[in-house]
Amino acid sequence: MKIDLLTQVGYKIAQDENQFCFGIDAVLLADFASKKIRSNSKVIDLCSGNGIIALLVCGSTKAQTVTALEIQKEACGLAEESVKLNSLQERLNIVNGDLKNAASLFDKYSFDAVVCNPPYMKASHGRESAVNAKAIARHEILCTLKDVVKASDYLLKPSGSFFMIHRPERLGEIFVELDRHNLEASELRMVQPSAEAAPTMVLIHAKKNIKPNLKVDVPLVVYKEKGVYTDEVKSIYLPKTGNGTK
Amino acid sequence: MKIDLLTQVGYKIAQDENQFCFGIDAVLLADFASKKIRSNSKVIDLCSGNGIIALLVCGSTKAQTVTALEIQKEACGLAEESVKLNSLQERLNIVNGDLKNAASLFDKYSFDAVVCNPPYMKASHGRESAVNAKAIARHEILCTLKDVVKASDYLLKPSGSFFMIHRPERLGEIFVELDRHNLEASELRMVQPSAEAAPTMVLIHAKKNIKPNLKVDVPLVVYKEKGVYTDEVKSIYLPKTGNGTK
Repeated sequence: MKIDLLTQVGYKIAQDENQFCFGIDAVLLADFASKKIRSNSKVIDLCSGNGIIALLVCGSTKAQTVTALEIQKEACGLAEESVKLNSLQERLNIVNGDLKNAASLFDKYSFDAVVCNPPYMKASHGRESAVNAKAIARHEILCTLKDVVKASDYLLKPSGSFFMIHRPERLGEIFVELDRHNLEASELRMVQPSAEAAPTMVLIHAKKNIKPNLKVDVPLVVYKEKGVYTDEVKSIYLPKTGNGTK
Repeated sequence: MKIDLLTQVGYKIAQDENQFCFGIDAVLLADFASKKIRSNSKVIDLCSGNGIIALLVCGSTKAQTVTALEIQKEACGLAEESVKLNSLQERLNIVNGDLKNAASLFDKYSFDAVVCNPPYMKASHGRESAVNAKAIARHEILCTLKDVVKASDYLLKPSGSFFMIHRPERLGEIFVELDRHNLEASELRMVQPSAEAAPTMVLIHAKKNIKPNLKVDVPLVVYKEKGVYTDEVKSIYLPKTGNGTK
């Protein structure tokens, strides 16, 4: 186990190099969602892994509580460690469970917001034959896009918000699953590695039971030149002030 | 009536300022589709207006035939004029009819490609109360997104291609309608007025009965500075050589 610092919120995070360590996608999703999560919200982070997004949302919003649901026991152990490291026992609740059983774990319509950085790749595609912690985090072995959206429909209050980051190549399926589960995308932002490169990630905000009227933002560009973040991405990593109830 | 020159294909087009004159969206869609339309294809242009897209596809592909279907008689008159001006009687066929009656106008599965620049706005939104030629071209008064996609499913051969330009705010509905009508988006390209501005149009290529695996391109940026097209857009307007059967 190693302890890393989350500069933007001033928290520590416990990670394990043998498991899945967080990437920029988690940071971008947490920032995208945190700007829209209202004070006193009850938030749930699905596929929460070592709790990176739950921690960032705790530190950068005035959410009342954040629940982190993760199927892998070892990742939950790391998340529990981070709860202690940052004395977040009052606000951050780690649950080791399967989102396909959301109905037996949580009350219906009990959350204001869902955040989710799910496995991106279909189980039949990549090299997931070696089923280990990293493969489970990357491939749809234990949960699919459909499982995530279905659970979110169950968990979210009417007018609740769903925030997800995913791969652009899954966009068609994402819109179809949202439609099948009473969710409608209200904002979409592509993430491009550079101004000249095709997007490699997409940020989505969907709401329950709204009429279609999607806002597509200007893309978020990560690097302005090799190894140098754009000002926008730099600002996402900068320490925030005035947020949260740290 | 006025006669304008389509420099990229060396054709003339008859337009009428009291009707809907073509914009950059038609030019971008024709270019996007023409690069993917195979030799000897049978192509149909839905909501074809004065025939701008059908003309550009004729001039920049080796399509066997292009059929332009338009509900407004006056627009069809202009398109017929353009057929004569460019001696395209052998390849370009203007049909005055309603795409909602596609089944009575054309054989099922009889086209290799559909191109469509439909009305972008919902009929209940804008200022379409004054129903005139321009309002019909812009608002979903006589046909909706659903009508377009449903007709395309009827018209396209298995493995046929569907090309459309639309507004980003309709993207969710577009994906849902495609899914309901056996079409799957294979390529998507956002169109941004400038590198710093949110997209205002989206180009979509969908195919029949394929598995989901969407390619999202780097956005097409129209202006590099005020009033100055980017090199890519300039190249779209440049005369093409070696294309078509002019």
